Amino acid sequence: MKHLTRRDFINKLTIATGSGYTAMVALGMIPASPAKAMKLEGKVEGKHVIILGAGLAGLSAAYELDKLGYKSTIVEARSRPGGRIWTIRKGMRETELEGAEQICKFEEGQYFNAGATRIPHHHTSVINYCRELGVPLENFNNINEGAYYYCEGKGPLSNKRIRQRELHNDMRGYTTELLAKAIDQNALDMPLTNEDKEKFIEYLIAEGSLNPNKLYQGSSRRGYEVAPGAGNIPGKLASIPDLLTVIQSGWLEPHFYNIPEYTYEQQTTMLTPVGGMDQITKAFEKRVGKKIIYEAEVTEIRKTERGARIVYINKDKQAQELTGDFCICTIPLPVLSNIAADFSPNVQRAVDSVPYNNSCKIGLQFKRRFWEEDDNIYGGISRTNMDITQIVYPPSGYLSKKGILVGYYNYGRTAERTGNLSLADREKMALEQGSKIHPQYKQEFENSFSLAWQKIKYSQGAWATFTPETRQTHYKALLEPDGPIYFAGDHVSYLIAWMAGSFESAQQAVAGIHKRVKESATSMNAGK
Amino acid sequence: MKHLTRRDFINKLTIATGSGYTAMVALGMIPASPAKAMKLEGKVEGKHVIILGAGLAGLSAAYELDKLGYKSTIVEARSRPGGRIWTIRKGMRETELEGAEQICKFEEGQYFNAGATRIPHHHTSVINYCRELGVPLENFNNINEGAYYYCEGKGPLSNKRIRQRELHNDMRGYTTELLAKAIDQNALDMPLTNEDKEKFIEYLIAEGSLNPNKLYQGSSRRGYEVAPGAGNIPGKLASIPDLLTVIQSGWLEPHFYNIPEYTYEQQTTMLTPVGGMDQITKAFEKRVGKKIIYEAEVTEIRKTERGARIVYINKDKQAQELTGDFCICTIPLPVLSNIAADFSPNVQRAVDSVPYNNSCKIGLQFKRRFWEEDDNIYGGISRTNMDITQIVYPPSGYLSKKGILVGYYNYGRTAERTGNLSLADREKMALEQGSKIHPQYKQEFENSFSLAWQKIKYSQGAWATFTPETRQTHYKALLEPDGPIYFAGDHVSYLIAWMAGSFESAQQAVAGIHKRVKESATSMNAGK
Repeated sequence: MKHLTRRDFINKLTIATGSGYTAMVALGMIPASPAKAMKLEGKVEGKHVIILGAGLAGLSAAYELDKLGYKSTIVEARSRPGGRIWTIRKGMRETELEGAEQICKFEEGQYFNAGATRIPHHHTSVINYCRELGVPLENFNNINEGAYYYCEGKGPLSNKRIRQRELHNDMRGYTTELLAKAIDQNALDMPLTNEDKEKFIEYLIAEGSLNPNKLYQGSSRRGYEVAPGAGNIPGKLASIPDLLTVIQSGWLEPHFYNIPEYTYEQQTTMLTPVGGMDQITKAFEKRVGKKIIYEAEVTEIRKTERGARIVYINKDKQAQELTGDFCICTIPLPVLSNIAADFSPNVQRAVDSVPYNNSCKIGLQFKRRFWEEDDNIYGGISRTNMDITQIVYPPSGYLSKKGILVGYYNYGRTAERTGNLSLADREKMALEQGSKIHPQYKQEFENSFSLAWQKIKYSQGAWATFTPETRQTHYKALLEPDGPIYFAGDHVSYLIAWMAGSFESAQQAVAGIHKRVKESATSMNAGK
Repeated sequence: MKHLTRRDFINKLTIATGSGYTAMVALGMIPASPAKAMKLEGKVEGKHVIILGAGLAGLSAAYELDKLGYKSTIVEARSRPGGRIWTIRKGMRETELEGAEQICKFEEGQYFNAGATRIPHHHTSVINYCRELGVPLENFNNINEGAYYYCEGKGPLSNKRIRQRELHNDMRGYTTELLAKAIDQNALDMPLTNEDKEKFIEYLIAEGSLNPNKLYQGSSRRGYEVAPGAGNIPGKLASIPDLLTVIQSGWLEPHFYNIPEYTYEQQTTMLTPVGGMDQITKAFEKRVGKKIIYEAEVTEIRKTERGARIVYINKDKQAQELTGDFCICTIPLPVLSNIAADFSPNVQRAVDSVPYNNSCKIGLQFKRRFWEEDDNIYGGISRTNMDITQIVYPPSGYLSKKGILVGYYNYGRTAERTGNLSLADREKMALEQGSKIHPQYKQEFENSFSLAWQKIKYSQGAWATFTPETRQTHYKALLEPDGPIYFAGDHVSYLIAWMAGSFESAQQAVAGIHKRVKESATSMNAGK
């Protein structure tokens, strides 16, 4: 039996995964290049790749192909790059699919990120591109113990805001108290020595801020009724609700789970570009902007003997044709489904079948940052079971005069409802529900800009959704090249709705093309 | 019986608390002024207040007195303002009490905060001064789930770093699993209906990331062995340690408690001035810098018939005298204890008796930010049971080339040991212990600057410590003016070691003086 060479192994991996690069880095076989987002070797001349879509997958594919000597052309339906990287600023226009039209009236310098807004600290592909392209990053404080929870219509504590720290520390207190009691009563069959049990109980006391009798009776961790200060003000704790009241007030329901604190993707530290997520797009545009044909709506994707042929309608409504050796298609599947294409049946089925989630956001500009001035809230997110779901506070620009809140950010059926409202009714909903949490809304509000991703023309959805079953069928169909056509975008990754998914899928597409070109060159040379 | 007027009430409060202002704001009787740090009414002319110490208490006292028309003079022993607000930068010199001398060799633009470094989001006095003086704030991410824990010499998991997310999520998993089990077995006498119990268990499953059988078997929240990515890389979870292993490895001991996550003072969001804590000092210096006499070492604090008389030695070693109507003394008690003063016996006893804590920090400059590039650590703190106690990562300047870590930040006996080392041995300790967590230390290290607050000449300690008993004796003695002498500084507050304590105590001193002056004017007018 032949011993596997390193190259054989790469090839095997590549067959299995679509690209050897990420997998080999992941498996520790080749070192990740810390300063560079991607590093492939070998120059190629005379090859043309047509890239469909100037979102992050398309932009980064062009950028990497350029390093390797390929020619590339990006066909983009919009008049701007970035796709769902979209920072809403003064003067921006958008007409939704059913005709709702907006022009952004924010003050100069004010913005919110309509799509991607935060970067997990372990999404190295994104961070490495920022390092490589010189895009400064700052903290995005996804979590803020001082932000509010507001539960409507459930029980005794409903219909009033509480600070997140109150619920978090009360629940830590009650759960550790109950567990300490169970252990003390030997109610649990635990394989621990008495000494270890003692250590565990000491930990529970510290974790829950229990008193020496192992009871939770409140804690300064949940804040004060009167804060401690100078002179003779030691501070006064507020009374605490009992566990039953907490449960009956709806506070243990999914709207208020600590999901963002805990999930790998939303744990601290999260990052965001200084000055808006579009800084990443702009950095790529500086490098590959000349390759982009804007306002070019793709109508046909064809396989030819020599590669791919693309037909698009240009901004003067004329049909144009492009041919290339390969195509990287990053078009969102709901949009792609309406484009005539020579896809193989499995691919076409995936393109036609993968459902996309809805998602809505609204940016609300206020005269002053009352959430900072009056409520001591600097960044983070307030959460509620109302349709607005959450209010996201800006993570920077602190102490400045004006500011923009994301007045809602919702998904699924809630977003379907929200997206079906008129622009005026969306604003009304955001203000009415939001003012239950922040009564200052009504006095301080200036203007808004809202969007429903399912109604944004060249997106038609917020992100792809797969089940474990469709990961084995539709998803797999998109991983292999369909002749000369490679698929990229976060929907071709396990990092759905994250920028890292776009970048890593683009890297795999580029690596796949490059490997094929190099192998074909080798076999041609061998045949000479 | 006479009905209490508002003014009577203020006077009563003032007698009880030293100042009515903060107490009345705290009790909701007067609105806090959001845009202003403090707001007192009434102009005063011809009164001179001598302020001892140009730390935050002294600077802000002068600033507030100035608004009210008072003349003030700040006597400062050092050649710089700020006290324990001290940002270490290139060229700074320091000679510790026993003669150890340093000149900072950091690169231009690199710095670390030797003293105060972070601002709780609810410390409105600090934040309001930043707003009022135009000092921009940014996030200080005190917490980072991606930072490390390193436990030395305890058990099977010792002597290797783990990500904080691993321990946090494993413990959430095990505690919720055990509690769910106890509830299922009806081992706890809980006054809950079955429906409420069900809700509680659903919460425990979500909180702990338990499987449908209510068992903790790991979770993506603790990170991956192979991270999910594009293509066919769904991600692979690592195996998890059992609870016994966690306990026996020392992970439940106090070094690793979630104290900073949970305490009111260190919860997210925390803030810090853009560009270093000294930006606050500089902003005050711009307003009241001309009132400061530098390198002026106070030798006598005297009460006179008309107020206070201060003797100091100026930079030319000559004795100088200053007289004023009042004195605000912010000198740290260990330093004040060696100054001749006409204090009343209770005050002198407090000055001589209140112990101060030790604290040491070292700044380590590295050639590159390997903690970002190699470890994906952006801000936050790694913790260990070694003497270095913690490594603090810079919360900004991400992706830039060089960086400074706080290589240790310790207190109490550990800091006593650390401070007793030579400068070279401190550096050696920081590098040897730190490189167990970050092996890159040895290759990337450039230079260091260390300090032991207990050996810094005009501080002689990091912060005052009180017991509940001494809060009733020594502390109370410092709250009342001793004739014309008022005390301020964080040691005259329940916000020890926080800048808010300095500001609020200074505000109380100013309010106390102002009230006295206005009352005296009223009674003089009444006597006419």
